[in-house]
Amino acid sequence: MVIVMAPTATDADTAAVVTRVQQIGGEAFVSHGESRTIVGLIGDAEQFEDLNIPGMSGVDHSVRVSTPFKLVAREHHPNRSTVWVGKPGRRVPIGPRTFTMIAGPCAVETHQQTLEAAEMAQRLGATMLRGGAYKPRTSPYAFQGLGRSGLEILADVSERTGLPVVTEVVRPADVEDVVEHADMLQVGTRNMANFSLLQEVGHAGKPVMLKRGMSATIEEWIMAAEYIAQRGNLEVVLCERGIRTFETATRNTLDVSAIPVAQGLSHLPIIVDPSHSGGHRQLVEPLSTAAIAAGADGLIIDVHPDPASALCDGPQALTSDDLDHLSVSVRRVREAMLRVPAEAEGGTGSDPRAEQASLGHA
Amino acid sequence: MVIVMAPTATDADTAAVVTRVQQIGGEAFVSHGESRTIVGLIGDAEQFEDLNIPGMSGVDHSVRVSTPFKLVAREHHPNRSTVWVGKPGRRVPIGPRTFTMIAGPCAVETHQQTLEAAEMAQRLGATMLRGGAYKPRTSPYAFQGLGRSGLEILADVSERTGLPVVTEVVRPADVEDVVEHADMLQVGTRNMANFSLLQEVGHAGKPVMLKRGMSATIEEWIMAAEYIAQRGNLEVVLCERGIRTFETATRNTLDVSAIPVAQGLSHLPIIVDPSHSGGHRQLVEPLSTAAIAAGADGLIIDVHPDPASALCDGPQALTSDDLDHLSVSVRRVREAMLRVPAEAEGGTGSDPRAEQASLGHA
Amino acid sequence: MVIVMAPTATDADTAAVVTRVQQIGGEAFVSHGESRTIVGLIGDAEQFEDLNIPGMSGVDHSVRVSTPFKLVAREHHPNRSTVWVGKPGRRVPIGPRTFTMIAGPCAVETHQQTLEAAEMAQRLGATMLRGGAYKPRTSPYAFQGLGRSGLEILADVSERTGLPVVTEVVRPADVEDVVEHADMLQVGTRNMANFSLLQEVGHAGKPVMLKRGMSATIEEWIMAAEYIAQRGNLEVVLCERGIRTFETATRNTLDVSAIPVAQGLSHLPIIVDPSHSGGHRQLVEPLSTAAIAAGADGLIIDVHPDPASALCDGPQALTSDDLDHLSVSVRRVREAMLRVPAEAEGGTGSDPRAEQASLGHA
Amino acid sequence: MVIVMAPTATDADTAAVVTRVQQIGGEAFVSHGESRTIVGLIGDAEQFEDLNIPGMSGVDHSVRVSTPFKLVAREHHPNRSTVWVGKPGRRVPIGPRTFTMIAGPCAVETHQQTLEAAEMAQRLGATMLRGGAYKPRTSPYAFQGLGRSGLEILADVSERTGLPVVTEVVRPADVEDVVEHADMLQVGTRNMANFSLLQEVGHAGKPVMLKRGMSATIEEWIMAAEYIAQRGNLEVVLCERGIRTFETATRNTLDVSAIPVAQGLSHLPIIVDPSHSGGHRQLVEPLSTAAIAAGADGLIIDVHPDPASALCDGPQALTSDDLDHLSVSVRRVREAMLRVPAEAEGGTGSDPRAEQASLGHA
Repeated sequence: MVIVMAPTATDADTAAVVTRVQQIGGEAFVSHGESRTIVGLIGDAEQFEDLNIPGMSGVDHSVRVSTPFKLVAREHHPNRSTVWVGKPGRRVPIGPRTFTMIAGPCAVETHQQTLEAAEMAQRLGATMLRGGAYKPRTSPYAFQGLGRSGLEILADVSERTGLPVVTEVVRPADVEDVVEHADMLQVGTRNMANFSLLQEVGHAGKPVMLKRGMSATIEEWIMAAEYIAQRGNLEVVLCERGIRTFETATRNTLDVSAIPVAQGLSHLPIIVDPSHSGGHRQLVEPLSTAAIAAGADGLIIDVHPDPASALCDGPQALTSDDLDHLSVSVRRVREAMLRVPAEAEGGTGSDPRAEQASLGHA
Repeated sequence: MVIVMAPTATDADTAAVVTRVQQIGGEAFVSHGESRTIVGLIGDAEQFEDLNIPGMSGVDHSVRVSTPFKLVAREHHPNRSTVWVGKPGRRVPIGPRTFTMIAGPCAVETHQQTLEAAEMAQRLGATMLRGGAYKPRTSPYAFQGLGRSGLEILADVSERTGLPVVTEVVRPADVEDVVEHADMLQVGTRNMANFSLLQEVGHAGKPVMLKRGMSATIEEWIMAAEYIAQRGNLEVVLCERGIRTFETATRNTLDVSAIPVAQGLSHLPIIVDPSHSGGHRQLVEPLSTAAIAAGADGLIIDVHPDPASALCDGPQALTSDDLDHLSVSVRRVREAMLRVPAEAEGGTGSDPRAEQASLGHA
Repeated sequence: MVIVMAPTATDADTAAVVTRVQQIGGEAFVSHGESRTIVGLIGDAEQFEDLNIPGMSGVDHSVRVSTPFKLVAREHHPNRSTVWVGKPGRRVPIGPRTFTMIAGPCAVETHQQTLEAAEMAQRLGATMLRGGAYKPRTSPYAFQGLGRSGLEILADVSERTGLPVVTEVVRPADVEDVVEHADMLQVGTRNMANFSLLQEVGHAGKPVMLKRGMSATIEEWIMAAEYIAQRGNLEVVLCERGIRTFETATRNTLDVSAIPVAQGLSHLPIIVDPSHSGGHRQLVEPLSTAAIAAGADGLIIDVHPDPASALCDGPQALTSDDLDHLSVSVRRVREAMLRVPAEAEGGTGSDPRAEQASLGHA
Repeated sequence: MVIVMAPTATDADTAAVVTRVQQIGGEAFVSHGESRTIVGLIGDAEQFEDLNIPGMSGVDHSVRVSTPFKLVAREHHPNRSTVWVGKPGRRVPIGPRTFTMIAGPCAVETHQQTLEAAEMAQRLGATMLRGGAYKPRTSPYAFQGLGRSGLEILADVSERTGLPVVTEVVRPADVEDVVEHADMLQVGTRNMANFSLLQEVGHAGKPVMLKRGMSATIEEWIMAAEYIAQRGNLEVVLCERGIRTFETATRNTLDVSAIPVAQGLSHLPIIVDPSHSGGHRQLVEPLSTAAIAAGADGLIIDVHPDPASALCDGPQALTSDDLDHLSVSVRRVREAMLRVPAEAEGGTGSDPRAEQASLGHA
């Protein structure tokens, strides 16, 4: 940490900073510049945060020079992680060498609709199913999801199709129920900074997909993952889903740079949601291929057997007609990025490493 | 609602939209423009939302022409509301004719610190106390608040000083505890879209202060208030606390325009938090006076007897030295805006309406 | 300047940084932290910028600790400046003790309309006239202003009313013409970073009003003023006019915090444009009073005798009916801020300092 | 409605169009561009349809007004355009079927540095050279470019290497000089809304690369292209270079969605600048491949033989070591997107259509 003194700071102000740092066993190096004095601190940065030095007399501001995360930081864990999702023996990987396609309906509406959407997902090459039973909606008058009966539908469709399922949890009190029915818990964009929910899923014992808050910096997003990890759950997958900007032509602005930046800062896998980013069906394909080419470890896509009757986010759901074209594009770019599809363990008899080798992966 | 068809829409596409609207008892008027066809819908806009018309073939987009809120909308409730906070007989108003000053420490640290901060608040003219027992922090390693024992400190200091207290609640499970100890519940910026928390405080039976999400539009913010109101609690005060923009010189950008805009859309009172907006002690005064002059119904300000030792947001807390200058400035601009201080009922023997009359208020 | 080395930097990398700094006569202090090494540089920061240290091996990034401006910096010029506008003997001040109201039509359309708008401006208490002869418009098919004949109308109306005039210049080639007809040159929001225009007005010999770019940081805005100052023209007035954010309820978001922040960084006067900030007539009054209470040195407001027929920005122009209410509100808040109206020299016979004294100004 | 005359149209042809429009009470405004004359019609668009103007002598086509842009809108020009850059017989295409790599130094510093950078560009597979002679810089004290002597260096290096050159123009007065030395004019992000510059390059008779303003909406950006087109120059290439958001981990946020959105609204080619978007050398590769996969028609990349000594934007310039890895990645993703490299006419003897066929392009 570096402390920048105000131009008007006195020597006594600077000395007070040094003393406070030394009191907790830190070291402080003072440099007198032309117009400013700076103090470099060496020791436990976290302890320095608690000293509240920016509140001291004569201090202009402080600059943190190290990353604030620990358990999820790549600095201390150079190899990127793989998170495995699903029942033992049928788990699907999300990680740096494979490419995981997740698809399904935005909201679970009926058993039939969910099953048809799961079949669409499989046509798209998905090896995981998505679907919402609890839907956080901007209006209290909008469809809020089927709740527990939606979870049961998901569990049944997952069983029939063999696809592990990820679904959103919105209340700490629901975590237990969701853990019982789903293979992976999703924390949505509106709850990224709902720290009590983060702590609760940190105890869940199942993997978590953490969507980026719509105005969260990459650092805040990774700090939210640290909250989950700090409770003992390191099975976290980050999900970029677009950020809020001044541009109104798209629902959100997909921050494709966040993929390599987050991969540089954290060892956690990162996937992309092109459906909620763009908000329009016709943007799903270019945003999907862009995400793969930027290094994403997977995609999560809305599909619906009849988008025109969807109770939630219909304009962005892919129809049956869109699947084949997208499948081909995704496969082409995935292969260009030397990634193999993320298959369930023992699922198809094929060994991902074999295709990977044939693609010339190092 | 108006449906704008795509340039490529067919007559059949348009007819399908009309049919769907008529099926739920709505009326649809078709206008063929030079390059586009538009369909105007008449009926229950909420029902139209559920039809998901933007997902239909040939539809480009829809345009909502009415506001989406009901219970909190000014459209249906032209007189702006006053919310009363505190024990019966000692309640303090927040509303359009008075001006309510709320102050206290960002976080409750000790009984002594809280009591001293409450006395500072009174010197500033505050008639309500703020203080955090549950602190949502970006880092899991930062001080998270004293929790229940913090609530007890607040309740005791409130009793001693006679100041009603507002404090943040972050988990649905804590609502009961907070209701027991505090006079008003605060929903923080990170939880503005935590709909399960909103619904829970909607049942609380005590007033709620709803901070604006740091990237929420004014409309989304008022919709969050609608969530609370929809559960039966109309005692909601909106609190503008700065939004996230590209500017890094301030912690957030105080959106002073949100005051008149929100007052035009909703009948709820609106106050401003100049401490979290600016993030710097020296910005508190100009942002406070700006907020009053923009029409705010009150302010909520961080004070701390020793900011340099504060466990949370020290750089923005006012010190004892700052109080008198701010008091004078606030009083001058408050009087220019023809508002009287919000006193507790029967508290001082003075009748707000009397000073108001002397200020020449209509 | 502080150089933060990457976690992977070698000792040789750090040594190379030190050597490069020493080669130009600077001093470098190395601090080895727990996870990072930092190098503090002492000497001419500008020279360090040219060294391009962030491009060197093992360097993560650099942190500037001093402000980059010189001529317009308050650091070297503690007293805030006053800029005087108009013909000798009839000049109007814009500065820290007075309050300057500027008003007029967005665009000059006819002589009659401009004269009527100038009379409206005077009713509002304005002592300066605004009006656009060159209008930068988003569409090439929109009204682009009357050009030179608009300048002539402005000069004539200025002569008749005695109001000094400020008008926008958009091309370096037009600066001479504008200087001939107007008393102050405006650089608009779209041209804030048009450095060749800035340099040209730096030679103009008349005061300049520099609007903030709609997505410019406060620092970039003051740097743009430095461009003008660097060519010898220190008669620059900053004008905050709203920034671009995600909020769509207002045309722009008035950044009221920019007023005290810019006043802390620069000695230049700063005024506010509430008309372009909000974009709606009914927001002009609350934004005007908010700006005054935040410490603005003046306002610039759109008025139009018949907004419904305006060729530019009609929805935000005040009508004749709006003037009296706004005048009263502005006066009340201005007096609360202990500022006197900025009168032309010798204009009314009244001495600003007299009223100021009666207001109790220190 | 706008009438676009053929390049071969005579003055008599244009006069005949005007006469016909006036005969039915319409107004017609004629703008003579460098390569095209256009006639803007005001009046009843439907009546104009009946005039059958596209059947008249010398008329190329007519454009109906519905989106705010006319000449550059895809609505009226379904086939995406190709812009050809360079001397006759050696022109390089930028368009929908090929992929154009442009590279070179951010700023021209010396002849040697520019030549070496051009050779680096060729190693990267570039068939066009970029380089700045006029540099708009935030600080007036930063290196502003070599100006005219920089243009001469570029022209010489272009001649030696055979690479057509694109360079920025910042002042209307410099357009003539730049046209003389370069093959394509760049309008930078800070000048996107500098309408007088746009109009000037609209007369230039050479292709223009129009960078998106850092806070411009996609629609405003395309409107800026319309400004150029309206003066008769339809040879415009859009360049996405990142937008300004709250995220500080990257210099700008690359808006990859803008590629398909702009391609849907306009027929103009669109390329991407990954160097200025990310601002860090290590982000150039993932942003490059993401841009290609999102459908970009080309890339423009900073390279420098010795970034550590670069006078401008060193941290983002690629070094010699970076080129081979990027070349391979770009080739893989380009092939996955079924695009062939944009070769100069007759340059290599290879026929783009041949490789394209072998890639299985429809």
